Parts: sequence; C-alpha cells; structure tokens
Amino acid sequence: MPDGTATHLDLAALDAADPLAAFRDRFSFADPDLVYLDGNSLGRLPRATVERLATVVGEEWGGELIRGWEHWVDEPRRVGDLLAAAIIGARPGEVIVSDSTTVNFYKLARAAIVARPGRHIMVTDRANFPTDRYVLEGLAADGSVEIAWLDPDPVDGPRPDDVAPILDAHPGDVALVTMSQVNYRSAAIADISAITALVHDAGALVLWDMSHSAGSIEVDVEAAGVDLAVGCTYKYLNGGPGAPAWLYVREALQGVLRNPIQGWFGQRDQFAMGQGYDPRPDIGAWLTGTPGILGLAAVEVGVRLVAEAGMDRIRAKGMALTEYAIALVDERLAARGVTIGSPRDPALRGAHVALRHPDARRLTAELIAAGVVPDYRAPDSIRFGLSPLTTSFADVARGVATLERLLGG
Amino acid sequence: MPDGTATHLDLAALDAADPLAAFRDRFSFADPDLVYLDGNSLGRLPRATVERLATVVGEEWGGELIRGWEHWVDEPRRVGDLLAAAIIGARPGEVIVSDSTTVNFYKLARAAIVARPGRHIMVTDRANFPTDRYVLEGLAADGSVEIAWLDPDPVDGPRPDDVAPILDAHPGDVALVTMSQVNYRSAAIADISAITALVHDAGALVLWDMSHSAGSIEVDVEAAGVDLAVGCTYKYLNGGPGAPAWLYVREALQGVLRNPIQGWFGQRDQFAMGQGYDPRPDIGAWLTGTPGILGLAAVEVGVRLVAEAGMDRIRAKGMALTEYAIALVDERLAARGVTIGSPRDPALRGAHVALRHPDARRLTAELIAAGVVPDYRAPDSIRFGLSPLTTSFADVARGVATLERLLGG
Repeated sequence: MPDGTATHLDLAALDAADPLAAFRDRFSFADPDLVYLDGNSLGRLPRATVERLATVVGEEWGGELIRGWEHWVDEPRRVGDLLAAAIIGARPGEVIVSDSTTVNFYKLARAAIVARPGRHIMVTDRANFPTDRYVLEGLAADGSVEIAWLDPDPVDGPRPDDVAPILDAHPGDVALVTMSQVNYRSAAIADISAITALVHDAGALVLWDMSHSAGSIEVDVEAAGVDLAVGCTYKYLNGGPGAPAWLYVREALQGVLRNPIQGWFGQRDQFAMGQGYDPRPDIGAWLTGTPGILGLAAVEVGVRLVAEAGMDRIRAKGMALTEYAIALVDERLAARGVTIGSPRDPALRGAHVALRHPDARRLTAELIAAGVVPDYRAPDSIRFGLSPLTTSFADVARGVATLERLLGG
Repeated sequence: MPDGTATHLDLAALDAADPLAAFRDRFSFADPDLVYLDGNSLGRLPRATVERLATVVGEEWGGELIRGWEHWVDEPRRVGDLLAAAIIGARPGEVIVSDSTTVNFYKLARAAIVARPGRHIMVTDRANFPTDRYVLEGLAADGSVEIAWLDPDPVDGPRPDDVAPILDAHPGDVALVTMSQVNYRSAAIADISAITALVHDAGALVLWDMSHSAGSIEVDVEAAGVDLAVGCTYKYLNGGPGAPAWLYVREALQGVLRNPIQGWFGQRDQFAMGQGYDPRPDIGAWLTGTPGILGLAAVEVGVRLVAEAGMDRIRAKGMALTEYAIALVDERLAARGVTIGSPRDPALRGAHVALRHPDARRLTAELIAAGVVPDYRAPDSIRFGLSPLTTSFADVARGVATLERLLGG
C-alpha cells in the first residue's frame, strides 16, 4: 500500500479514484447490502441483459419464430469474434461460442490426440480444474493414451520448470499439454508463452483453459502462439448460469484438426441436409448441435461490457483489488490464522485471492449467513473473487472485516 | 373426412369441437395474421415462459447469484423426470435435460459401441436426420467401426422388414442400430417395439432419435424395451431456440454404459472437486458441463404445457389435423401437381405432412412472403408442421388455400 497501513486507506477515495466504478451501475444489485465476492464463479447480471433477453424471447422467438434462424445461425461466430478481439487477442474467425466448457475441452483434447498419432501422453496438473482432469481421464479410459500428471506447488501453479522435465521424460511421446492459465483455487497465472514454446519444441499441441483468465487478465493467444483454448462465459464475462462457452482454434490448425463430434451445425451446406459430412472450411467446423440462443444473447451483452471497459483497465483494477485484500488480510487476519493461498506478486495473480484457514468450510457458511458471499474450495480455502467490473474496494473491506469478526476480532 | 368433401367441412365447428383449442391462448401470437406451420422446427413461445424467464433472470440470477446453484443443480434431472413421465413413458431417474441433441446422440452412440467390444457395425438409414448421420460418420472416421446404411422407402421409412436383413448380413457384428422414431421429412413412424426386439435378438443396442416424436405422438419407451433415446425440446415441447435437449438411458444400462465425455457435472461428489473421476451412480453420470439454466427453465414450461394437455389428446389432434390437411390437398392441389410425401395411414404418421412438388423451394419462399410459414426440405418437399397445441384447423385451411392460389388456383 502506498502510505501507512491498509486499514487506514481512505476507502471512499479508493473507490472514487476507480475509473471503472461507474460500471457497477450497469449491473443489477438486487440486494444492495450483499457483499458479493463470487463473481469469479457466477458473474452479476448486467442490466442490459434483462432488456436484451426480453427482446430475444418476445420479439425474436415469439415474433420471428423460425425466421429468427436467418440471424441466429451467425451468433456463435459473431459473438466469438467480439470475444476474440476484446478479450483474448485472437483474430476474427478463430473463436466460436457454443456448448459447455467441458464439451469444448473434450472436442479439442480429443482432436489434438488424433492429430498426433503414435504419441500416447497427455500432460496436465493435479491442481487443474476438475472437469478438465475428468475429461482427460475419460479419454484415457480405453488405454490408447495416458495422463502424465504434474504436481506443482499449490500456490504458484505449473511453471515452465515443472513442465520441461515431464516433456523430457517422454521424448516424442507427448501429444497434448493442457493446463489452466489462471488456477481456479490459487489464482496463479501460468506463463503461457514460455510453456507453449516448450510444448511446441516437444512436437505436442497445447490447450489452455482460460475460464479464470479471459475477462480477468490480459490475454494474447496470438503472441503466445497458443494452439487451442477454451473458456467459460459465466464468470468474468457475466453471461449467466450455464451460458454457452467459447473455444479457440488457431487458424492454421482449423483445417488440420478434426472435430470428433460431427454435428449438423458443422456441416458446410447445413440446410441442404445432404449425404456425407463435409465440414465447414473454417471455425464453424467446431460447432456441433443447435446453439442455445438465449444464452448466446446474454453472453454478447457481457462481452460488450468487458470490451467497453477495456482489459487493460480491468486488469489494473483486479491487481489493485487483490493487493488491497492481501494487505488487509496480512494486517488484520494473519494473527488469527489466515494465510494467503495465492501468489504475492500481483503480476503472477489473477483477480481472486485464496484465504487459507483450517475452518474455511465453516467460515464460508458463516460469511454467507452474514451477507458476504465468497466460495469455499476444499480443503482449506475461502476464495474471495474480486471481479473488477462489479467489486468495489468497500466490498473488499467489508468482506475482510466480517471475517475478522467471525474469527473473534 | 366423415361427410362430404374436406372443402365443405365447417371449419368453425372443427375448431370449436377441438378440446385443445384453448391451449392456443397459452402461447404468444405476436402476429395474429401469421399462419405458422413450422412448430415442428421451432415451437411457439408459451406466454408463461416470458414471465418464468424474467423471474429466473431477475430474481434467481440477479438476486440469488451463486446461491441459485443450490436448486439449479437439480434442474436437468427434475425437468427430465417431468418429461419422462408425461411424454415418453420412462421412469423417474431415466431422463436428463442438458447439452444439445447432437452432443447427447454422440455420448450415447459412442457409449453403445464401447459396450459392444468386438462388434464393428452401426446401422442407420440414409433418410435419418443429418446430425445423427454425421455423428456416426465421425465415430467411423478412425476405421474402428463402420456404418451399414439402410435405404428404405422415402415415404414409409425403415420397417422391421428393412432392418432384419441387414442384421442377418452381419451376424454377431452389429453394435448399434439407430434411427428416428418419426422421420423428419415424411413423418413416417417407425415401429420401435418390433425393431427394438430385432436389434436385441441380434445382441445389439438401439438408440432412437425422438426429436420429431416426443410431444407429437404417444411414446412408451419402457413398453418398447428401448435402450437409449435422445430428443430435442425446441420443436413440439416449445422450449425455445437451441434449448437443451434430453437423453434417456434405461435404468439397467446406466451402470453398464460409460459416458465418453466425463465432465464435472457427472462426478459423484461434484463440489469436492477431488482427484479421480467417480461417476454418479445414476442418470446424473450422463451430464457433462454446466447446463444452461435459462434454456432449462423454458423447457420446463413447455413440458408442463404438454403434460397438462395430455399426449392422448395431442396425438388425436395431430391425426385429425394431418388427415384434414391431406384431404384438402387431395381435393384441391393434386390436380396442380402436389403429391403427399407422408404415410396415408394416420397411425403411421406423425404431426406433419410433406407436400411434394417440383417447385417446392420456390413455393415455400412464396408462402412465407404471403404470411404462411412452413418449411422446405430438399429436394421437393414443403413441410406443413401441424403442432397440435398451437395449430388450428383454420390454419391448415388457410395454408392450403394460399398454396392453391400460388399454383394458379
């Protein structure tokens, strides 16, 4: 903190100086007294989404009926292009929004394995998000491929130095390396440029899960040479519960990799309904079935808000909020047994902070009962998610003060 | 028709005698002059859905935020149970609503193949819905299995007599037989009991696509001994564009077959986020990623409307509407080159009628311009979809009269 202690910082001044403060008015605050520190699990409802969904339901579905498909059919790619440009540094035609993160991860992981015949190893880390680990275990179930597990430091996440030895241990045999860019528990940021380069040197493909990074930190998939990526839209992109997820396939790989789930939305001349699957010659080949149009409409509103705010300002505020939270915890909760389970260098940390305490599960329930909503992550973390568009410095202060009180402060 | 010619039937009396006529008031008719004959592609918007979605968005997402998952997590199964009981004759715990029809079809088809090791043949028909055919082609792409194609009569669809020879031709080698219960183009109803019995005699599994049957004809998966089924919810169930689809796995097979897409929603103790995929011991194992909650809410409203109307009455009205349409076409359009591309026996026909004409594509566009919305199916069919809950006899008469005028009548 610049001067004195975190406790004595002028909260009103911090929030007044926040260039993104006005964005809070763009979101619904149904309960103005609630301190919501879980925008990294389910982002708040944008006010514009209420109106947009009413239009899509009443005018488009209700009024246009089947004729709505004349424009709905373009939504997965159109919203994907918005997301590509504003959020992950991809080019037009490299991103679609459709299916869930899990289904997209499956499509890309399986495609990567098929694209590296004769190689048998998929690399990931034990601290990776569960659905990614479970999908890989499913791919390995027939014995044709297996997982080589990294077990990195739980706070700092997988570093290039963790990845290099496992690649060296399986020369010419690694098909795929996949990890999260920002760890869901610790918020550790992986060095995607360095790790991607190592993976390419080993002749493998890389698949990044950006569910906790897209919309919270600046991402440039093109600069990092990323092959494949997926991410969800209901966290920092505020797309709503179960909103359709996105996937990225680098243009050069689109004609090389094959979508294992060949559905009619991936068919070149879809409505001819002809014999023989003939995939679209572009990112559209990664579509499967009929995309959820209500969810897509909500995602578009969320992505536009992020684009308007700008990832540079969102990233700066995420760093400031987490710095402030850590300073407060150090000052007021460390003596009560709370430790920081996230990197202390803000450059290596996303927009949430893990507070570790042996009673984390009980404390999370008590925080929620007291009107502060973080989430619990086993075994011992209270996760304060500080989604930059909707979280104030006052929210952070109230969250920490409530936890202090619960700890007998 | 009971008396005289179809042309002279008293339309007002037909609609007045319709026990489901009042259900039209439960749906939005944004343009009251539109004759909508495409409820078999995208069903109309239920009025209750507008209100329900406003609640889910404003109060649940906006107000409950992450806490909404305490009940949202049960939605795929809860809505599935409603659908199971009211629409397809399945038991509680045999149906979930999640993902698209394509993704569900992929999961079940792949699982069936894995469950029949050493067998190499998947049977389907050339007239089956495109996405099903394309998914199977994707499964066959690695050469481990192949498709044996049926090429049945395009109007009457696959009969037991079509299926038996192909099973006999591949003794002990057929893993999976999959077809649509109601053909998307002709509306021909397959005999699922007889075909399922033949498939079981051959030691294979059967997967029925019920996208055009669930909600339009009476279905009893248990009586027919069906193993696996999928269907969409945006046609006769009025769930909205891209609403999540359903899948059915007979209870006895749930612990035997394995979902190839192992996601976190299929994990037994999901929020422990532990190491090692441990599937739920029930239909929940067939979930993958985070289900779309907005779409699920809309599906529930649509399913409840169908349940309230009753499949017996819906089926009776579907037969009456299609009988009336065929009688009108025979009387007024046959001389102008229109033929019927659907079975003439109403017991063998779903709730739509294919009208064949060499200029079907142009005529469909002209009908739409004239305020009558059917759809076109290559090469030569105008499809009149007569969704029983929302279509009147007057709609049918206006649709045929408009086509007659376009043909120079």
